[in-house]
Amino acid sequence: MTGNYALQIDNRICVIMVGLPARGKSLIAQKIVRYLSWLSISARCFNVGNYRRLETAHPTAEFFDVNNAEGERLRRQAAEAAISDMFRWFDQDNGTVGILDATNTTKSRRSWILDICRKRNLEPMFVESWCDDEDLIMQNIIDVKTTSPDYVGQDPETAALDFRNRIRHYEKVYETVTERDITYVKLVNVGSQVIINRIQSYLESRIVYYLMNLHIKPRCIWLSRHGESIYNLEGKIGGDADLSSRGREYARQLPRLTKMSVGDRPLTVWTSTLKRTQQTAKFLPYRQLTWKALDELDAGQCDGLTYEDIEERYPEDFAARDENKYEYRYPGGESYRDVVIRLEPIIMELERQENILIVTHQAVLRCIYAYFMNVPQDQSPWMEVPLHTLIKLEPKAYSTEVTKIKADIPAVSTYREKGSSAKKPKS
Amino acid sequence: MTGNYALQIDNRICVIMVGLPARGKSLIAQKIVRYLSWLSISARCFNVGNYRRLETAHPTAEFFDVNNAEGERLRRQAAEAAISDMFRWFDQDNGTVGILDATNTTKSRRSWILDICRKRNLEPMFVESWCDDEDLIMQNIIDVKTTSPDYVGQDPETAALDFRNRIRHYEKVYETVTERDITYVKLVNVGSQVIINRIQSYLESRIVYYLMNLHIKPRCIWLSRHGESIYNLEGKIGGDADLSSRGREYARQLPRLTKMSVGDRPLTVWTSTLKRTQQTAKFLPYRQLTWKALDELDAGQCDGLTYEDIEERYPEDFAARDENKYEYRYPGGESYRDVVIRLEPIIMELERQENILIVTHQAVLRCIYAYFMNVPQDQSPWMEVPLHTLIKLEPKAYSTEVTKIKADIPAVSTYREKGSSAKKPKS
Repeated sequence: MTGNYALQIDNRICVIMVGLPARGKSLIAQKIVRYLSWLSISARCFNVGNYRRLETAHPTAEFFDVNNAEGERLRRQAAEAAISDMFRWFDQDNGTVGILDATNTTKSRRSWILDICRKRNLEPMFVESWCDDEDLIMQNIIDVKTTSPDYVGQDPETAALDFRNRIRHYEKVYETVTERDITYVKLVNVGSQVIINRIQSYLESRIVYYLMNLHIKPRCIWLSRHGESIYNLEGKIGGDADLSSRGREYARQLPRLTKMSVGDRPLTVWTSTLKRTQQTAKFLPYRQLTWKALDELDAGQCDGLTYEDIEERYPEDFAARDENKYEYRYPGGESYRDVVIRLEPIIMELERQENILIVTHQAVLRCIYAYFMNVPQDQSPWMEVPLHTLIKLEPKAYSTEVTKIKADIPAVSTYREKGSSAKKPKS
Repeated sequence: MTGNYALQIDNRICVIMVGLPARGKSLIAQKIVRYLSWLSISARCFNVGNYRRLETAHPTAEFFDVNNAEGERLRRQAAEAAISDMFRWFDQDNGTVGILDATNTTKSRRSWILDICRKRNLEPMFVESWCDDEDLIMQNIIDVKTTSPDYVGQDPETAALDFRNRIRHYEKVYETVTERDITYVKLVNVGSQVIINRIQSYLESRIVYYLMNLHIKPRCIWLSRHGESIYNLEGKIGGDADLSSRGREYARQLPRLTKMSVGDRPLTVWTSTLKRTQQTAKFLPYRQLTWKALDELDAGQCDGLTYEDIEERYPEDFAARDENKYEYRYPGGESYRDVVIRLEPIIMELERQENILIVTHQAVLRCIYAYFMNVPQDQSPWMEVPLHTLIKLEPKAYSTEVTKIKADIPAVSTYREKGSSAKKPKS
């Protein structure tokens, strides 16, 4: 059994970013990589700037002047190196989605890339970020001047000025994508307008749908496991148990904990359909939605058993799960991979929404956390997520900040280390 | 437990079609209604032409001349009646997605509708079908002259001529949607380019994703259950049994049966992950893909039981399932509604693809068939789908044609009528 809910991926996609500097191209490219990697689709970004810096580490704006022949030669050479590494990655490492992160602002440059790709029987998909939202551009300029290796060690004001001049050089030759015979997506002020041209494959349409749903307004996501449950006390997995008295105490304290972190921002609470998450969210004075997709990983035949029971009754399964916890599927139940696939609409909706608090279960929380924090699959099922703790995720331009807020209410630990034998949970 | 994998829908959407006559607006509107209804989202189309015909049953092209004040008055009156019925439907029948099917080709007309909707606190979504593909337009003109009530009983050539003149009147005043402050989707030559502006809600984004994936090339879909299995012989449900000898005979004959119907068209075969569909498809000389989403409805605790066993051991469940088979969820298993939700990506991919043969299971086949044939939820779980039969679906402009091709191989009947007691299957 192959076990894929999604269609098998039998094509490679070469995504070519397009846009002036400071239009969020790298951010978008990295989000695509993170999203696809989370779905077990091998994706990688090839940033032409990194190749260019090997020769020219700290160029001034003049380097990007279209009349600077030497600059033009070096930039093209960097693009060639990036593209050739991308093709090597497709061939040698079985890459599926390669992203060329560069400005590619002229028709002739795009036509050159198109030819190279088509010679390889690859029809590239151009993703343009077009933006005239001054706030967004300013924010990006600030990010670049403080984070770009091009300006390391320079005075921030000088850097910003130089960067603006660089942008001006690009603006002189910029041609927005209008070529009707190519596959492209144009994002106008991310989240505002999207133009989609000649999308062909399933995977392309998935990427487009993801891009369609992105926005860049600042917002936070809060995650919490349900409060301690009767099953947690008994060391049992699965089921639909009520909260323990300490779990109920967490539910009572959660509004205060939440208010402290959320402040006056509008918030929506998502729970699973299981009693322990709904009882945990009961006192939260916000709009609440229930998702079946947030239900705990289905342990199938092992539902309601303790780890000790499982080790005793199904020793081979117990060992197999330790061996590859991400892929291991309980008999009649689910694997972490299965959970990720059913969580995909949740992630999509999270991208669309603003402030959300999710009250859910250990395995589900691990999967959602893995998406935002880019945790690899061999680690995500082993992450420790304690009970009675509120986690705040704040997506920033190139990373996500995490804050953990612990309620002062004891709870059993439901964590079992890899390779350890099953023991009764300790208080 | 609410059991919705999808987010609960808490908003209403008013979809306003835009486009010249013969651009497939009604087809698109009806596809949206069919898709949403299948997902249990209440949707309805309000066709302004039907309201206009109450006053003016067989107008000539001049009726649509922008300088014809009386025609203009009657057309606006029809639009008002349709809109007011739509609002009544929202309010009284709890409608979720109402579609106004009309040309709405001028900015002033759209602005008028926008005002009416905004007064009701509804932000409408405009869906424009823009088309300069002459073949597509010609095909639509042929459809209209033969099917439109406007031309009933008229000479087809005269009708076609008049219809072209009607289109010309519209062309004189047509303004494509460019208003940046409204929510819209513009489909350029369906399937070729899509422009998306200010999409806001989750449900809107689902509709847009659906529209993005539509194409209008002619194609067919073939459906078959797996051949008779050992479990079928024993009257058991679920499981992962091998084919019976008669089932294996069906597998051997399927390539010939398929070839007869498919001819030389390219074809891809989709199967579930269960042995009985893969054994059935084994000899088919086409590319094959395996989808877990095509697996049979999960009977949970009843997996591997006969209907007799279920009636005996779980009499209340047995009766509850008869009462509402669509909603009934087996303990630890699935309902038809659950299956529809997991089939949604399959339907989306079917819309994208061309010729596909799906070898799957009784309940899954019922759900897919219900989508194409618009079968209501109280009937779809009770449809008889015999074993050893190939079903061909041919989507046409306003309906889907069905052909059933029976292999001459006997099989048990797995059909149980509503309200009947469980009996051993008869040969």
